[in-house]
Order: sequence, then C-alpha cells, then structure tokens
Amino acid sequence: MYIQTMKPKVNTVFETSERIWINANLATFDTTLEAGYGALNTQAIGVRGGRIVAIAPMSAFDAAATGAQIIDARGGWMTPGLVDAHSHLVFAGSRAREFELRLKGASYEEIARSGGGIISTVRATRAASVNELVALSEPRLQALMREGVTSVEIKSGYGLSLEDELKMLRAARILGQRNAVRVSTSLLAAHALPPEFADNADGYIDLVCNEIIPAAVAENLADAVDVFCENIAFSPAQCERVFQAAQQHGLGIRAHVEQLSNLQGAALAARYGAWSVDHLEWLDEEGVQTMAAAGTVATLLPGAFYFLRDTRVPPVELLRRYGVGMAVATDLNPGSSPLASIRLAMNMACTLFRLTPEEALAGCTRFGARALGLDDQVGQLRVGMQADMVLWDIDHPAELAYQFGVNLVRQRIVAGEVCNV
Amino acid sequence: MYIQTMKPKVNTVFETSERIWINANLATFDTTLEAGYGALNTQAIGVRGGRIVAIAPMSAFDAAATGAQIIDARGGWMTPGLVDAHSHLVFAGSRAREFELRLKGASYEEIARSGGGIISTVRATRAASVNELVALSEPRLQALMREGVTSVEIKSGYGLSLEDELKMLRAARILGQRNAVRVSTSLLAAHALPPEFADNADGYIDLVCNEIIPAAVAENLADAVDVFCENIAFSPAQCERVFQAAQQHGLGIRAHVEQLSNLQGAALAARYGAWSVDHLEWLDEEGVQTMAAAGTVATLLPGAFYFLRDTRVPPVELLRRYGVGMAVATDLNPGSSPLASIRLAMNMACTLFRLTPEEALAGCTRFGARALGLDDQVGQLRVGMQADMVLWDIDHPAELAYQFGVNLVRQRIVAGEVCNV
Ligand SMILES: [Zn+2]
Ligand SMILES: [Zn+2]
Repeated sequence: MYIQTMKPKVNTVFETSERIWINANLATFDTTLEAGYGALNTQAIGVRGGRIVAIAPMSAFDAAATGAQIIDARGGWMTPGLVDAHSHLVFAGSRAREFELRLKGASYEEIARSGGGIISTVRATRAASVNELVALSEPRLQALMREGVTSVEIKSGYGLSLEDELKMLRAARILGQRNAVRVSTSLLAAHALPPEFADNADGYIDLVCNEIIPAAVAENLADAVDVFCENIAFSPAQCERVFQAAQQHGLGIRAHVEQLSNLQGAALAARYGAWSVDHLEWLDEEGVQTMAAAGTVATLLPGAFYFLRDTRVPPVELLRRYGVGMAVATDLNPGSSPLASIRLAMNMACTLFRLTPEEALAGCTRFGARALGLDDQVGQLRVGMQADMVLWDIDHPAELAYQFGVNLVRQRIVAGEVCNV
Repeated sequence: MYIQTMKPKVNTVFETSERIWINANLATFDTTLEAGYGALNTQAIGVRGGRIVAIAPMSAFDAAATGAQIIDARGGWMTPGLVDAHSHLVFAGSRAREFELRLKGASYEEIARSGGGIISTVRATRAASVNELVALSEPRLQALMREGVTSVEIKSGYGLSLEDELKMLRAARILGQRNAVRVSTSLLAAHALPPEFADNADGYIDLVCNEIIPAAVAENLADAVDVFCENIAFSPAQCERVFQAAQQHGLGIRAHVEQLSNLQGAALAARYGAWSVDHLEWLDEEGVQTMAAAGTVATLLPGAFYFLRDTRVPPVELLRRYGVGMAVATDLNPGSSPLASIRLAMNMACTLFRLTPEEALAGCTRFGARALGLDDQVGQLRVGMQADMVLWDIDHPAELAYQFGVNLVRQRIVAGEVCNV
C-alpha cells in the first residue's frame, strides 16, 4: 500500500480509497516538501486500510470516479494528528493540597512532613490497582485526545519497584487498547530513588537493569527506557548503565537531561542513539552538536518551565543553527506540569521559548513522532503514512499555537476513522 | 424569598424547594462565614424560583419531607458559578498571523504595514454585522461556560464609533439571551483612538460622553463604562470625563489602569466609586489605599501578563494588607490575551502572581461578582443568592487552580437549572 509517488496514478488511488476528505487545506509537515507547514491548499486526501493512499489538488480529483465515502472539509485545515511525546499521565493521588500549601508559604520540610512531594505520588500509585490507575488516568488521556492528540507517550516512574513499574506500564497499555490513540510507553524506573534503596542508588540501578528492564521486555510493556539524569536523581554513569541495558534489549532511549544543571546528559544519551532528550534548559553547544550528529530530537517542555517558574530557557537558537529537530510536549505530571493540554504547551512554546507557530506545530507532529521513533508511521500527511489526522475549524494553522481555550477540532481521525473522542 | 437565617426553618424551606442537591461539599465563599473557601461539608442545598432557599448539613435534612427533585452530589464539591469579570470576547478577525510574524522577528512597523495591531481588529469588527459578531464570539463564550462560567463581562471597544460600539454591545446582549449565562456589558469606547480622530483625542472623548454613552443608555446596552487609562491610550483627565458622564447616567465604572505605567488611574477611578480597576502591575500604595476606602475590587489579569511576557507583577501583598478584594479574569482578547479559559487564568494567578488557590477561586466568585456590581446576586452560595452554581468532580477545591486541561465540571447550574453547556 506504500506508494512512493502517486502523481502518475492519482485517479487509481482515489478510486481505491475507502474515504476521501475533499476541499481541505493541508499542513502536511511532509519532510520531502519545503520546511514550515508544508502547506498544500485545496486538496483531496484519500485513505484506505488505515493509511493515507492519495493526496492531490482538488483540480486533479474526480469525485465520479470513486465509490469512497466523501467528507467535505469545506476549506478547513487538516494536520497530522498531534503527538504528545512526553507525559507522565498515569499516576494516582493529587498534589493540589501541596500546591496550596506552597502558595500559603509552607516550607519544603512542612510539605514533606504533610506527605507531599514525589514520594506522595509514589505512595498513591503503589497503593492503586492497575484498574484504578486506568480509571484515574483516562480523563487526562481523553483531555489530550479531545484537543487532537492521536499519539501519546506515557512513562512509568512512580512505582519504583519491579511490580509497581510494570503495573504502571500495563495501565498505559490498557489505556491504549481502550481508547482510539496510539500509546508509546517508556520505562522510567530511574526517575527517583525509592525509599527502599535510600543511600544505595547503584543497587537500585542494578535492579532496574537486571530485573525491571528484562521483565518489561518479556511482557512487551516498554517501547523505550527513560532516565532522570540530574544531581537530585541519577548520575550520568548510572544513566549510562540503563542505556546499555536498553540497547541490549532493543529498546528506544530517551532521557530527562539538563533541566536543573548541566551534566552533559544530552550528549551521553545522544551517543547511545537516543530518540529524544528532554527539558534542556542547561544544554550547551557541545550537547547540541552531539544531538545533531546522532539525529536526536530536543523535546521542549514549556509547561514545566512555566509551572516551576524557571527563568533559563532552552537554547532554541543553537538547536535551530545545528538543525536539531524540536518536539513540544506537555510533560503532564502531578508535580511540575499538571497541564493536560498539548495546545497550551504549543502556546507556551511560542510565548515562553519563542518558537514560531510552525515550529510548535512541527514539534507536536513530525518531531513529536521522531521523538517516539515513530516517524516512519505518523507525524506527516504523506502517502504511506498512518491516516492519523485532525481536521480543524481554522483559517490558518498559526491559530493552533496562538489562541487557546476554544476547542478547534472538527474531526479527530485515527487510522482513517473519525473518532468521537 | 430572601431568608436571612434559615436555621429555625430548615425543614420548611427544604419542603418548599423545587430541587435539592444532597451530599455536597460546599465552597460557599459566603462573606458571613470565615475567610477562605467558606467550606461546609456534607450539605444539602435547595433552590426555588432560581434562588438558593436552603443550605443545611445532611444530618438536618429529611428527604421524606420534600417532594423536590433530589440530585445526589455523591461528595462532589459545589462552588458558586464562576464569574469572568473582564473579557473582550466580542470581536471579529484573527491576530494569529500577527502572532506568527512577531515570532518570526517582524518589527512593529512591518506588522502595522501587514495590517496587524488593534486597528486590524477594529477594521474587522466594524465590517461585521451584529449577527456575524454573535456567531464569531459564541464559541469563545461557550468555551468559558464549559469550564463553569455562569456570569461574564463583555466589553465593547473595537468599534470606536457610535454605531459600531452599540453594535458590539447589542451582540453581547444577544449572546446573553441565546446562552444560559449572565452577561454584564461595559462600554469601552475609550479603548483606543479611532483613525477618524487622529490627533483629536479630546474630540473623541466628546463623542464618547455626549453621544455614545447616552445612546447606549437609551437602549439599555451598557451596565458600566470602561476606559483604557494609559500613555498610549487616554489621559486621566480624559478618563475622568468618561467617569463623570457615566455617573450622570447611573452606569457602573471600571477602568484599565496601571498596566504599563503608573498614572494613578486606579485612585482616580476609585474616587468615582469604580466597581473594579484592572491590570494594576504598576499600582502604588496610595492607589491601594484609595481602592480600599472606596471598596473597589482589584481585577488581576494574569493571561495578559503571561502573553505579553511582563515581568512586573501587581502588588498582591499590598492588596492583601489593605483588604482589597482581588478578582481574577481572563481578559480574553485577540491582541494580548487570546486565552478563553477562566481555569487557566486561575492557575496563572497562582503560578505567576502567587495567589493562593482560595484567593484565585474567590477572585472568580465573590470578588468577580463584586467587580461587576453583582455581589448581591451571585458569587456566593448563600440563601437568597441566585442559584448559579457548579458541581465539580474534585476532592478539594484547590484542584481547580492547580490542575489544568481536564474539565472537572459535572454540572453547571444557572438560576437553579442544570445546563448542558
Ligand atoms: Zn518528565
Ligand atoms: Zn482588557
């Protein structure tokens, strides 16, 4: 079904399409077109078997020659389905009271004493069953879906034990089965040191590499590993051991790096062929160069920057200069980014990090897909790609990053099917 | 129907209620209770004729003694319906392309040449019919309503001529008739100088005071006047003339002041008994004192602060010290706050201005109501008030300011009726 160039066969492929959207403006983000939106105006786009099989100008489209279902986009814009390439949306518990205490002036000690911090999320997540985790997390997932998300990455990292990490990943897989959305999972056992391993981080990394990763692989629960490389979390040497274990098991690699300090975690992960390194406020030029050479995506998380009131922004200009692809994601999590909105992340990427709307939308489509190792499947409107698409009620794609609050989705389409949520 | 204290007659008022929510936790924001949420746990709340007629603990409620419709809140939280006390949601045109040009590095001159800036909104708004304005604005209004807004202020200010200002206010009135929401209108003719009056601001203020205000009053189109008191807009002396005209016509007074500089506009408006002064990044202590003496509300607009990347925050600590009520509103507008979300405004009030979740929610309930001169009608859960309420799927009211993206509204209730949008 993959058709390298459909120009000579336009009529044929439209004839065999099952469903065709007509009168659509496309922001293709097709890597074979010029940079930016890859805009194609007034097009027909046909799907079959869940994939895009034809794209052509309306002038070349003959409605009489097809028995397909025709959907008139009436001049609306179609983009690839949005990709949220970084989320921690599976968790239990709430940190709202902690947020309130902090704003009332409580010290970190008082918050810790009152049961706050990441350990409170770990405690609640450990106490929840897999079904409870699914029920608690589904509204967050569906909030993203309502905004046009068709692929989402979900991390573990609040279990911090063999069984609880696997439980989180199972919940993520179940969410993907229950909902019309592609879920990519990352095993983030190396997120924080569990209380059982206090003062024994290396011992915990042993557990991660020797037991948790193999067990996750045995059940096909993880598409990638992730680590939190930071002074308050795991050292580059410890992260490297996780990357090595991931390589041995054929998992993708991603990493939280350079958020609070510069440990050269980005370059380390890139040398291991990481799909993505994320946060990057402290990334330096050498890191950018290493990422460029490896083709590693820079995933920017402006929601956490906003929520933590950071002042140091990622080196966007350097990333542009070296041609490093930038993804934009929510980082949806209870501690530092309780923002279940990819559109808000896009707006914040522009407002706070000075990305252009084109870059922000590319960050939630083609580069989001690359950050998940899915760029041969989704993230572009191109013949052969999965027909994951969104039809928007907008006059220009810049609207998606500019305005916020009005849901502009007219149709969310996964594998060629129009979905309700 | 107003019952000062219902304690001796609990059974009687529940007996005559038309509808009763049971097992609800209430964040009443009742000014007669202690500060903060005014929380009352596990209550029954009865309505009749659109008003709240009974509030009592479940232990004092006898379901058998009433023929009312019973709705079980199952431990959810009920708050007053949210009030968005500052919006410019009626407008035509889009500034998305301008946003994009700016992020691509265009200068202000290039943007002006390409037709951007407020004048582009004025041009599009003037060109639209009243029905077109209603159709364009309704999705923005309904986005707010979906989040729990039951009262919203809507300003004119993109017409800047007699007929176009009245047209905007007519659109706002129609929106209020077509939707289950209370609309309070403000005549903001003194928003910007129309091109017809270039270099003749005093002449335009003559038009505002002598023609536009009387015409708006004659058709009952305006509940208040508003002005933009700033070096780039209108001087305090010009604003004072508008306040005087408003007083003569019995209109409420509000003002955009101290956003970009300190012209002592807040004190000026407060001396005229303003319901609210808004923005306030440059407000000084004398202004705060004058507001406190006048009972003028400080309406904080963190969305504009965020979108414009301001760094100077309003003097929240001073406002607290002098007991000035703080409202929180969206400032929804195409130029500086294209954010149709009161929940995001609440989160930004906490994250950026360091309000507590209690203060942010009070800012969207009782103080939002006071900012609209409606505090004897809405903004509190109290016997005698309009039964404008929201039932939320939350365990604690701090959730509303803390997390974002998941719509937590279970029921939005206007005048005692459960509404779909
Ligand atoms: Zn993260
Ligand atoms: Zn305003």
